[in-house]
Amino acid sequence: MSKFWSKSTHNLAPYSPGEQPQDKQYIKLNTNENPYPPSPLAIQAMHDAANEDMRLYPDPELKKLKDAIAEFYAVSPEQVFVGNSSDEVLAHTFAALFKQDRQKNKSLLFPDISYSLYPSFCRLFDIKYEQIPVADDFTIQVDDYKKDNSGIIIVNPNAPTCIALSLDKIESILKANPDSPVVIDEAYVDFGAQTAIALINKYPNLLVTQTFSKSRSLAGLRVGFAVGSAELIEGVERVKNSFNPFPLDRIAVAAAIASINDKNYFESTCKKIIKTRNETREQLISLGFEVSVSSTNFLFAKPKEGINAESLYLSLKEKGVLIRYFNAPRIDGYIRITIGTDKEMAVFLEKIESLMQGQTINNF
Amino acid sequence: MSKFWSKSTHNLAPYSPGEQPQDKQYIKLNTNENPYPPSPLAIQAMHDAANEDMRLYPDPELKKLKDAIAEFYAVSPEQVFVGNSSDEVLAHTFAALFKQDRQKNKSLLFPDISYSLYPSFCRLFDIKYEQIPVADDFTIQVDDYKKDNSGIIIVNPNAPTCIALSLDKIESILKANPDSPVVIDEAYVDFGAQTAIALINKYPNLLVTQTFSKSRSLAGLRVGFAVGSAELIEGVERVKNSFNPFPLDRIAVAAAIASINDKNYFESTCKKIIKTRNETREQLISLGFEVSVSSTNFLFAKPKEGINAESLYLSLKEKGVLIRYFNAPRIDGYIRITIGTDKEMAVFLEKIESLMQGQTINNF
Repeated sequence: MSKFWSKSTHNLAPYSPGEQPQDKQYIKLNTNENPYPPSPLAIQAMHDAANEDMRLYPDPELKKLKDAIAEFYAVSPEQVFVGNSSDEVLAHTFAALFKQDRQKNKSLLFPDISYSLYPSFCRLFDIKYEQIPVADDFTIQVDDYKKDNSGIIIVNPNAPTCIALSLDKIESILKANPDSPVVIDEAYVDFGAQTAIALINKYPNLLVTQTFSKSRSLAGLRVGFAVGSAELIEGVERVKNSFNPFPLDRIAVAAAIASINDKNYFESTCKKIIKTRNETREQLISLGFEVSVSSTNFLFAKPKEGINAESLYLSLKEKGVLIRYFNAPRIDGYIRITIGTDKEMAVFLEKIESLMQGQTINNF
Repeated sequence: MSKFWSKSTHNLAPYSPGEQPQDKQYIKLNTNENPYPPSPLAIQAMHDAANEDMRLYPDPELKKLKDAIAEFYAVSPEQVFVGNSSDEVLAHTFAALFKQDRQKNKSLLFPDISYSLYPSFCRLFDIKYEQIPVADDFTIQVDDYKKDNSGIIIVNPNAPTCIALSLDKIESILKANPDSPVVIDEAYVDFGAQTAIALINKYPNLLVTQTFSKSRSLAGLRVGFAVGSAELIEGVERVKNSFNPFPLDRIAVAAAIASINDKNYFESTCKKIIKTRNETREQLISLGFEVSVSSTNFLFAKPKEGINAESLYLSLKEKGVLIRYFNAPRIDGYIRITIGTDKEMAVFLEKIESLMQGQTINNF
């Protein structure tokens, strides 16, 4: 605390991202990174851009990247916003669309189990919000979002629950809320859910956000984007231009363009991950776990009676496998496992099996 | 305008950065880019980092980069903040330190001629501000900053005036304002002014911001930083972690580390630019311009009586030389010229000379 801080700064809680160990080598299944490298064309584009022109500013309008994303999703470039990671895209979206008037009669709605950065954004931008409980099976009940609100944001498929909403359920939320901005955060959509981008021309209140960090294997590049009506995009652009007019470096722009253009690579790596995920799920079920049907690149699993989720996380860490455990209400009995390569998942399953039988069971 | 925008979004004015033509080739002396390429070690570091590890998140704490900056300036890593360009560093600083309580009895102070993004930040974060007029010769009068305020921010050397304040004048502002955060924005400091980083251990209210975009030839990389008391840095970190916990990509981190470690290259390119700047200034004076003594990598010049600054800018653009003209109160009679290579400045001077004599004088 400091007398030089703004009052609002005192209210901010430090954020804890998933562990990113910089030294010890783990099988890293804890932050939903893609186990496959980025498209070779994206890596080539990085090398091509790493030249003397780095002395020059990037294009402030990011025109070529917007064109490439627009082409991929068959929308117009005016319906595309690009930012430094989907976290930044979401932060600008909260500022542009969800910030409320002083009175705050209404609340922003999002599920009680959702992305942990949303409450941080609300504290930062002084946004009143209400967390709507998901059902006992962690599914989002769309009828709960058909009430007075100042905006709605839903991760689809949801994290860390890995469960997807169908497009018609998303559409019923949009239909019921014609006067509210509705944001669908599709960080994991490419692993098995339907994107709501198909609905943007029908619903001017819809903004869809995505990232290059998961399905395009570029968590290290920090590029995210939003697709929505030109009206919503312009609002987010205004905030961005008042904050940091050049958020993407020249290499990030070049690599993102190459990545989105390499559709075959993208589709084949997504397919591999989906296959590994479905097989891993079956194997966890056969070990006695309860595991939701996943539409993401991770699984959310509850160990069988008598096995403590946090201990399981800690024991696996000791054995060199890093998964994610959330010490949070409703989900503290679960572990989240990012899908790695087949080989990594075989090691993970072997370690977990050996922990669950024999002597090491005493650890639990 | 849109019913889905927050009220505050309606109040934001679109920002206009300097022209960044993506097609036609100009001698580009308009956005204060460095005419020399980045350190070869920085370019090598980009290539080394452009590998399969791009699938992984960067270190959220940016420890190695903070260590390198701390070592360069002989401060501790806890006194360093790093962000995605100094614009982002400044935006977080405005949110963390300058955001006011609802009452707003006091104003943030900055000069009336200053960085054009500051009023944008103030609109974005709803900050009350007062612009203090610089003197007729564009010098900042430090006594004007010895009155009640909620914070102070000064670009030093100032832009676009290119004039520096001495360290003892900066110190007198700090002494007079022990209860206010004071930010010195040193984007251009390496071209001939003294950095206030020397004062951070003496003044807990001092934050100094710098960038890799100018003196380190990395405008295309988007890396900026702040150095100040650990107390101020923690405030800015809190905002950053509530907004975008991973603002720098892996390549930017690697290149910034290599760049700051290549002290010889940095010093030799700064020296070359200073020499070219001083020579160009003399030549402009001999052509009848009034030109302030510059401590930056640009010159701010007033054409002689009868020559219109805007026409001069437009005529030069037509002849393939891009400089900057500001259609703004007090400075609309001036042109700003970024210092290029000796060869580029020779072409610029030749074009300007030919425009000012002979037939083409009629254009003005």
